[in-house]
Amino acid sequence: MTRRTSAALAGVAFAASVVYAVSAQQNDGPQYAAGTNRLLRPSDYREWIFLSSSIGLNYPPPGAPAGPQRFDNVFVNPRSYRSFLETGKWPDKTIFVLEFRDVGSEKAENRNGRFQTGLRGIEADVKDSRFADGWGFFGFGANDKDAAPLTGDAVQRCIDCHSAHTAVERTFVQFYPVLFDVAKRMGTVKPNYTDP
Amino acid sequence: MTRRTSAALAGVAFAASVVYAVSAQQNDGPQYAAGTNRLLRPSDYREWIFLSSSIGLNYPPPGAPAGPQRFDNVFVNPRSYRSFLETGKWPDKTIFVLEFRDVGSEKAENRNGRFQTGLRGIEADVKDSRFADGWGFFGFGANDKDAAPLTGDAVQRCIDCHSAHTAVERTFVQFYPVLFDVAKRMGTVKPNYTDP
Repeated sequence: MTRRTSAALAGVAFAASVVYAVSAQQNDGPQYAAGTNRLLRPSDYREWIFLSSSIGLNYPPPGAPAGPQRFDNVFVNPRSYRSFLETGKWPDKTIFVLEFRDVGSEKAENRNGRFQTGLRGIEADVKDSRFADGWGFFGFGANDKDAAPLTGDAVQRCIDCHSAHTAVERTFVQFYPVLFDVAKRMGTVKPNYTDP
Repeated sequence: MTRRTSAALAGVAFAASVVYAVSAQQNDGPQYAAGTNRLLRPSDYREWIFLSSSIGLNYPPPGAPAGPQRFDNVFVNPRSYRSFLETGKWPDKTIFVLEFRDVGSEKAENRNGRFQTGLRGIEADVKDSRFADGWGFFGFGANDKDAAPLTGDAVQRCIDCHSAHTAVERTFVQFYPVLFDVAKRMGTVKPNYTDP
């Protein structure tokens, strides 16, 4: 083997390893337990794209008292984020993680700042053609490694609220200011959408 | 040229283009206007790693009234985040962006959720050995493409507060729950640190 061919083949080996890394990035969408619709708990969502944070935005069932004041953070897989920036829509295989955190308060007098503390739970919402109506909703217990899609009344409440009150498709883009601007520019805000 | 050599050389060309992309990722730290200490406004910080969000955490000068209620979001460059996960410390060439956003409130009765809306400004804090004491603080006006490091009294207030009230080095890691856990585990919380 000549020195040049040897260097070239080393290049191919290196390229192959990088192709693997690039593919992993491109497959950053929802992952399921083999042969099932059970969503694997995303392990790296804190390194996805942050969409926004809010406080006290909870939706108790009709008649029930408001839930505890918590912060929530929303993250989306990077590939779908970049697609939304270009189109104002979510591609198939998009996964959102909604993370709940307790609220800490400053102790000092005359200060009322509040900040995020302990993790209280995560939920996921996925757009995936493997589900009959194109979307699946999941709740993860503290130690759950995977979760089955919600069914029955539980998912119907998700679907109703995510249909009636969302600005873009079944997602609360009105609370994600960077993307809300994109959706307005692209004309993908639902015609019947009104401000929250 | 044989077919095999040709394929190998194509691999090298591809590898070279990927190396360029990987290098760009590794150089995700602060960038300056050529030959100066003027920090270029980061264009892609919303795709960096989100550290946390808070509301009402502002620090008016002594005697001044509290500032307006705003959300703030903190982002850090990915390379430095990954380094902190391993060491509990910030490497040289770390850049934080602090983003301020207005607060929207739900209109519906009996709801008091608050969410993020318009961008009000960004500031940056960098750890960089090019500065005499290792850190630089920057404020960006709405249309500023770059900013000079703060000097004099303005930066002294930054340094004093970032020295007296921060959990790790000159950073408010106590408000970044994922990283605060890392710092406790790694023993990098400052010995004189007390809860906020």
